[in-house]
Amino acid sequence: MKFNYDVIVIGGGHAGCEAAAASANMGAKTCLVTMDMNKIGQMSCNPAVGGIAKGQIVREIDALGGQMGLVTDKTAIQFRMLNIGKGPAVWSPRAQCDRGKFIWEWRTVLDNTPNLKIWQDQADKLLVENGEAIGVRTIWGVELYAKSIIVTAGTFLNGLMHIGRKMVEGGRCAEPAVHNFTESITRWGITSARMKTGTPVRIDKRSVHFEEMDVQDGDSDFHQFSYMGPHRVLQQLPCWTTYTNKEVHDTLKEGLADSPLFNGQIQSTGPRYCPSIETKLVTFPDKEQHPLFLEPEGEDTNEMYLNGFSSSMPMDVQLNAIRKIRAFRDVEIYRPGYAIEYDYFDPTQLKHSLESKIIKGLFFAGQVNGTTGYEEAGGQGTIAGINAAIHCNNGEPFIMKRDESYIGVLIDDLVTKGVDEPYRMFTSRAEYRILLRQDDADARLTEKAYHLGVAKRDRYDWWIQKKQAVDELIQFCEQMPIKAKDINSQLEALGTTPLRAGCKLIDLIARPHLNLQNLAEIIPALKEKLHMPENRKEEIAEAAEIKMKYKGYIEREKIVAEKMHRLENIKIKGRFNYAELHEISTEGRQKLAKIDPETLAQASRIPGVSPSDINVLLVLLGR
Amino acid sequence: MKFNYDVIVIGGGHAGCEAAAASANMGAKTCLVTMDMNKIGQMSCNPAVGGIAKGQIVREIDALGGQMGLVTDKTAIQFRMLNIGKGPAVWSPRAQCDRGKFIWEWRTVLDNTPNLKIWQDQADKLLVENGEAIGVRTIWGVELYAKSIIVTAGTFLNGLMHIGRKMVEGGRCAEPAVHNFTESITRWGITSARMKTGTPVRIDKRSVHFEEMDVQDGDSDFHQFSYMGPHRVLQQLPCWTTYTNKEVHDTLKEGLADSPLFNGQIQSTGPRYCPSIETKLVTFPDKEQHPLFLEPEGEDTNEMYLNGFSSSMPMDVQLNAIRKIRAFRDVEIYRPGYAIEYDYFDPTQLKHSLESKIIKGLFFAGQVNGTTGYEEAGGQGTIAGINAAIHCNNGEPFIMKRDESYIGVLIDDLVTKGVDEPYRMFTSRAEYRILLRQDDADARLTEKAYHLGVAKRDRYDWWIQKKQAVDELIQFCEQMPIKAKDINSQLEALGTTPLRAGCKLIDLIARPHLNLQNLAEIIPALKEKLHMPENRKEEIAEAAEIKMKYKGYIEREKIVAEKMHRLENIKIKGRFNYAELHEISTEGRQKLAKIDPETLAQASRIPGVSPSDINVLLVLLGR
Repeated sequence: MKFNYDVIVIGGGHAGCEAAAASANMGAKTCLVTMDMNKIGQMSCNPAVGGIAKGQIVREIDALGGQMGLVTDKTAIQFRMLNIGKGPAVWSPRAQCDRGKFIWEWRTVLDNTPNLKIWQDQADKLLVENGEAIGVRTIWGVELYAKSIIVTAGTFLNGLMHIGRKMVEGGRCAEPAVHNFTESITRWGITSARMKTGTPVRIDKRSVHFEEMDVQDGDSDFHQFSYMGPHRVLQQLPCWTTYTNKEVHDTLKEGLADSPLFNGQIQSTGPRYCPSIETKLVTFPDKEQHPLFLEPEGEDTNEMYLNGFSSSMPMDVQLNAIRKIRAFRDVEIYRPGYAIEYDYFDPTQLKHSLESKIIKGLFFAGQVNGTTGYEEAGGQGTIAGINAAIHCNNGEPFIMKRDESYIGVLIDDLVTKGVDEPYRMFTSRAEYRILLRQDDADARLTEKAYHLGVAKRDRYDWWIQKKQAVDELIQFCEQMPIKAKDINSQLEALGTTPLRAGCKLIDLIARPHLNLQNLAEIIPALKEKLHMPENRKEEIAEAAEIKMKYKGYIEREKIVAEKMHRLENIKIKGRFNYAELHEISTEGRQKLAKIDPETLAQASRIPGVSPSDINVLLVLLGR
Repeated sequence: MKFNYDVIVIGGGHAGCEAAAASANMGAKTCLVTMDMNKIGQMSCNPAVGGIAKGQIVREIDALGGQMGLVTDKTAIQFRMLNIGKGPAVWSPRAQCDRGKFIWEWRTVLDNTPNLKIWQDQADKLLVENGEAIGVRTIWGVELYAKSIIVTAGTFLNGLMHIGRKMVEGGRCAEPAVHNFTESITRWGITSARMKTGTPVRIDKRSVHFEEMDVQDGDSDFHQFSYMGPHRVLQQLPCWTTYTNKEVHDTLKEGLADSPLFNGQIQSTGPRYCPSIETKLVTFPDKEQHPLFLEPEGEDTNEMYLNGFSSSMPMDVQLNAIRKIRAFRDVEIYRPGYAIEYDYFDPTQLKHSLESKIIKGLFFAGQVNGTTGYEEAGGQGTIAGINAAIHCNNGEPFIMKRDESYIGVLIDDLVTKGVDEPYRMFTSRAEYRILLRQDDADARLTEKAYHLGVAKRDRYDWWIQKKQAVDELIQFCEQMPIKAKDINSQLEALGTTPLRAGCKLIDLIARPHLNLQNLAEIIPALKEKLHMPENRKEEIAEAAEIKMKYKGYIEREKIVAEKMHRLENIKIKGRFNYAELHEISTEGRQKLAKIDPETLAQASRIPGVSPSDINVLLVLLGR
């Protein structure tokens, strides 16, 4: 049996769902192949979306016309803006979601996406002809043909789960592993290796002594992920925090001999920033406690997620250790934590479009590229989906620069530096992070996405409406004269120095103690001006205030980014035979040959390529 | 790792969920072992509950304090009372449900059941000691110990799926099969064999030409399954009907050589009353069309279920055949139909309590006993759950007679007659079906269930309230005098003969053209009397009317049942060495020895035991 599409997406996780939606929204006839239509968009690990730098990625996905933000908003049970005490460059939204509802919401989104078809089956073999991916054969013998194929198989490829010394094949708890498919890709010269990840125990809330924990409520003002309105009224659920202790650590240490992470059973590397509890003990032997977060899995379930206690220790060790915590002294679990090893593919063999350098028309996104995190997966999925659709018409790939989005940073890091451990995004990975804020992803991306076709008219109009309101508010602040005598007593009351002379309102906003909200209380015209459509007031004020308050920083950063663009504009791909450039260090030659960078800027970011190597190239280019 | 419980239930399908809930509600510390907590109560085949004789079983489960009716009511998207044109003995409620919501509703029910714990894992080995089941070992090496073990593994034991000549191991589409577990049971002398079932193609509603089909709406007055109130307001969705045709049949016939049902690939027997479309063609070669029903899978999904088109033909044959139907000429599918073979255990090795005769404390329920249907599974699960809990305290088993419930008929048929094909309930299987109505399962069972402890006080009170209202209404009708002159003209208008003399109201109700509703229009006192609590009015009137209208039939049936009870009361188990009873036919001797019936009545129902064999036993017993 044969079917023809423009784009085939293999895998219905966070990368696959975004890829399929993006490609279909671009107008490509898209088929999403998933083993289980009941598990689409399953949050395999914690029931939360966003977090530091990850929240920004979700906003970018949303600004690009993607779905993760919308699905999160519809299923959120708690919302917090992290890092709010720091500068707005690192403010990061995060939401707890209802795991079950998240899946069904994704199903609904995909069901209502034109051009998108779901096929419930399992990929068995990549079909390649003349160096070009032409399709996929499934375990049921179905042949699906397309111009672009996107692989988003998550942890399913040759997945092997570990709990203590026990090993069971599977792609995720209770789901089969995928065999053969990796081999049908690597035989063409694409390199694969193994990575490891893990997940913690799931707890029955009826067995928890909540009085022994601290409550962590959501923000009182409910934000949302998507720039699209309207807001949903949310009945928030709390999370809870506690700590491990010496007894917990002692119990775990006694079991270390049976830990697959330390007895040699697992050779591959797990996520550094999401380590198992046993790894934390070994890495930080002096720490007497580690924080734990107990998160609800949904509105109607007793299942809770013990964030911070990821483990593949033997089951009894896990349970005995947890029960040494007072809140969990009588704890009942639904299942223990486990580790899983899976195949990923070397991302340095990818272009910035996420297309393989080796097999034309073959794209990779998500955990198969060596990343960790739903958001990192979704971001890659969006870009792979857009570029897979573009590839069908032989168009120009859509590539984001490092000063344009975290997704751009992520992909540039992957394809330039490669990975030897699961890659997680952080704000520190972005050199232009003041330009990559959660409040302005729409400003950075929505217009582009609209012209690509992946964002639709309603989103574009919604953004234009905001943009106009923000610009108008800024203009008002720039023009509004403030007289010292009218305001000095109130300024002093607000803890800021009085004015010596008159100024414009915008000059006041730049001051640390002042903001639109408290200024509105003392400047009636501003208060009047802030009377905007109720559902958009907050985001408009936030966007305008940040632009005004951090104007200097933002402009400086833009200048730096502009300089880098000059290097970005120097295309070098295919212009050198690196092996013969003896002026360059041996390591530099090897790395340059391997990555074959698109631009001089990318060359400069390759680990092992030194500034003097770059100078050699500049000289050779005649600059 | 070891855990101790009173009762362990293996499998979270319709049998397992009811068993676990019943056992926990009886006060037994219960553990439900399920591979996947996201698939609890999954409707593996059609998204509907009830139907002829099955609807009665759901009412019985409900009357016994079970959950299927409540879950159905909360997730129904259409409700119909089938057979309403016939006598009330065969009225059968049926509901379409939202497949996704059904799962989460079951999760919520189980989550909120005290004494019940869910353990996400997979059974690998039954643990037996001295002829007694003591526990289960899982694939992760966990040992769960209990006094009673209930096996409700559905189609998962050595499950093998077929589509054309392709075979894939699995317990259900996208879920792993369970190996080893069957063998750990059969090694103790329990017999297993293979059965087959199948499921049809799933269709994308966006690709259907609905204008080519007939609509089938739900009942205008929404009924519900559970006797417990209050009613939910339901926005009903329609089903659709169409037919196969000669072209469809021709296409299917061309593929018969690759049909696993006809090329020898599948040896086991499938459900006679739910045959695959290819079986229908072969069995009824003269039929030019077969009806098909297109059923919605839920409120928010495009997935639809093509009832009547179950198939394991090659995928292209299935699709090409469906596309020969006008409504489906452009149809897109999510996946084809498939067949699955699985292990079941000989139910004649069970007692009426569903406990194994061979291994003490081991119970079986659902498809593993050779039945088909969610309702049949749920009914057995309820009884197994009750008896597993009773077994923990060495109590007297709870056994229902054939004149008491369809579940009683079902279990008696299973353990007495055995199965050589999947067993489905029909009203014709019940000799006392006028006593086993959908309207009176509460009258038959709720009081017993309350005294057992499985039904709770609220349900008991709810039933008592109804009972009193029904009795009062009947008493009113028995006492209310009717004068001929007051009513004769209206009786003639209603198409029934006038009275010659006065009578009681109840005498009028017995007439075919008259019922409480139209009599209320002409007898103001009755109209007044029918003013009852709004939410219970219908069910009270229905129950009272049926009792009055069919009083004669019901009383006659009760006398017949009473006679049979005399045979039921003659316990014969262990009283004969059948092999030595040469007065009995050879076949009779063999069958009696194999089943070792509890009572003379059961002996009389064993296939191959003749009435004269029964007479011999009566003589030997000195009667």
